[in-house]
Amino acid sequence: MTTEASSIPSVADSRQPTADSQFGRFFLPGPTEVRPEILAAQTRPMIGHRGTAMVELMADLQPGLQRLFRTQRPVYLAASSATGFMEAAIRNCAMERVLALVNGAFSDRFRKIAESNGLAVDALEVPWGEIHDPGMVADKLRTADYDAVTVVHSETSTGALNPIEQLAAVAHDAGDVVLLVDSVTGLAGVPVESDAWSLDFILTGSQKALALPPGLALGVAQPGALERARRKTNRGTYFDFLDFEKNVAKNQTPNTPPLSLLYALQAQLECIDREGVAARWQRHQAMAQRTWQWVDAMNQRGVALEVLAPPGGRSHTVTCIMLPDGIAGPEVTAAMSERGYTIGGGYGRLKERAFRIGHMGDHTLEELESLLGHLEEALLK
Amino acid sequence: MTTEASSIPSVADSRQPTADSQFGRFFLPGPTEVRPEILAAQTRPMIGHRGTAMVELMADLQPGLQRLFRTQRPVYLAASSATGFMEAAIRNCAMERVLALVNGAFSDRFRKIAESNGLAVDALEVPWGEIHDPGMVADKLRTADYDAVTVVHSETSTGALNPIEQLAAVAHDAGDVVLLVDSVTGLAGVPVESDAWSLDFILTGSQKALALPPGLALGVAQPGALERARRKTNRGTYFDFLDFEKNVAKNQTPNTPPLSLLYALQAQLECIDREGVAARWQRHQAMAQRTWQWVDAMNQRGVALEVLAPPGGRSHTVTCIMLPDGIAGPEVTAAMSERGYTIGGGYGRLKERAFRIGHMGDHTLEELESLLGHLEEALLK
Repeated sequence: MTTEASSIPSVADSRQPTADSQFGRFFLPGPTEVRPEILAAQTRPMIGHRGTAMVELMADLQPGLQRLFRTQRPVYLAASSATGFMEAAIRNCAMERVLALVNGAFSDRFRKIAESNGLAVDALEVPWGEIHDPGMVADKLRTADYDAVTVVHSETSTGALNPIEQLAAVAHDAGDVVLLVDSVTGLAGVPVESDAWSLDFILTGSQKALALPPGLALGVAQPGALERARRKTNRGTYFDFLDFEKNVAKNQTPNTPPLSLLYALQAQLECIDREGVAARWQRHQAMAQRTWQWVDAMNQRGVALEVLAPPGGRSHTVTCIMLPDGIAGPEVTAAMSERGYTIGGGYGRLKERAFRIGHMGDHTLEELESLLGHLEEALLK
Repeated sequence: MTTEASSIPSVADSRQPTADSQFGRFFLPGPTEVRPEILAAQTRPMIGHRGTAMVELMADLQPGLQRLFRTQRPVYLAASSATGFMEAAIRNCAMERVLALVNGAFSDRFRKIAESNGLAVDALEVPWGEIHDPGMVADKLRTADYDAVTVVHSETSTGALNPIEQLAAVAHDAGDVVLLVDSVTGLAGVPVESDAWSLDFILTGSQKALALPPGLALGVAQPGALERARRKTNRGTYFDFLDFEKNVAKNQTPNTPPLSLLYALQAQLECIDREGVAARWQRHQAMAQRTWQWVDAMNQRGVALEVLAPPGGRSHTVTCIMLPDGIAGPEVTAAMSERGYTIGGGYGRLKERAFRIGHMGDHTLEELESLLGHLEEALLK
């Protein structure tokens, strides 16, 4: 398998102009563009999910996944969207009372998932676009007997990046409290240290900074999360961490995995290893910084754009840009669509007032530059 | 999109000899072999899952799915293995006390899923390979206040086919009892009439008789199942039927769908429509009957094979064949592997004493004939 995957060009190599002129123009904050070579890896033939070929595939995936999550723990894989693993986090690790940190649409979803599973949930809300202050969270944790905190690392709806290292510290300082981290547009795009930061459970989905098709959820549970699962009853079957743990030790999955996506993951992990995880983070940082600079430059040219998230609290994978009065979000996405580019609209309540650029996955600074050039034209027209 | 899918040959057309001599030799009872053209459909580029292209794709899928499930109801789709939808059935539709019909490994899993979600569960067990007698189930339903019955239509571990039409009737005769049907190796291979038989919830997975890669769960809920969901609290988020229902009405999915598999499904539904659902059922029946005849013929040649499931209770998609003393299951699968064929081993406790043939999906009678020829050689050697 290694030899097959090795024939796949690295990110830089494969970003040559192709016959498909649409390629390199798809900047949604998920699903992100998937390179043709990675899509092609999905066409390998079926194998049994309990056979040796599958064990070899799983064994081949783990080291690259561990490098990506910066963990010595095994990485759980399942046929699911990331929402399924948010529910998994709740069902396995939250005992009775949850503090949900809410600063956008997806962190609010995490809150709702906890509620829909019968837990007592308090929300600590800050305005959309802002991030959570660890001191405020520490204060809030003293007000009730919380056993779990939910947080979204990179809020895809706003482009805000929560300080999960510090939030894990305050959760643990508060006693037997676990931090459950949705890093859907974080992992593989912004620095994550699953072990060093003691993130009790961290999850992501395949179709964001990993630049794979959707349908594969990935997560890492620290021993404390497993200890919770052991104490919980009624945690169900499909997302049972004890079942994942037992199976991953044998290089298996508890349930049938989405094989085509594992093939694509294998090909993509080879590319990520060639680029280097830290270099991948740097590429995302460079794309984010360029986007913020461009917003500044547009202001100097008289278009009052604004990056929603505050400096120091901005994700490197997605930027939500607020528009001045008189320009509606849908106009901008439509104008870009006419130019052959796909960007994200403002999410939910921000639909009319914002747009979003997903500068993540395998995109390059050059592609972003070209996007920003067209965006500039569209806005100055 | 229709034009793209139309270029995909039908089952018969594409079963020409190919450069890959391994093709047509993969007879696991799941995942089943996926034709190269269907695998290739997975390589279409990403689209946003809330955009118009996705709405068009979903709208295009529904009629074919409804023809397959024989329903007027919408078909729910999710990134999940079928096990996830078994859990969905339980979380949405089972209130307090469940009767689990157990006649093999997967029906036992359904029982465990109900237990792991905190329900009171009684099992009505019959020996592996046998099917459930509706009269016995009716009797059992009178002994306690059950609100749901779980059943596996086609038991992949044994090849037994439960009479789900009659079981639905006895469940409904017993009062407010819903029948939750795992038709994982049933649907698309053996007759299913979701509406006419009043199957309250029926689910399947993509990698069986549909002959798609794994990772997509499919299911149909009748109004009674939805009514249950409305009355249930703590049914969670990822598998919430009310959320599926709300979204499918807009040709959307509640959570990010596994896009590559939807592309493959679209291509495959075109082929299934060209073949015709009833013709597909007949092809499976012919393959099953040929397998049973072959077992009889082998007996006449002195090899005491036995189809585990009783006549009248045999699935058309998978046959579990018991071996005489002196021939171990793993020897048979290994001998076939040497000949370039993949067949299933005996499941779990039957590993040493049986093997299984998955004659489902897009396999043809000709391919089965060739498999049986090699199997005969291996057994007579």
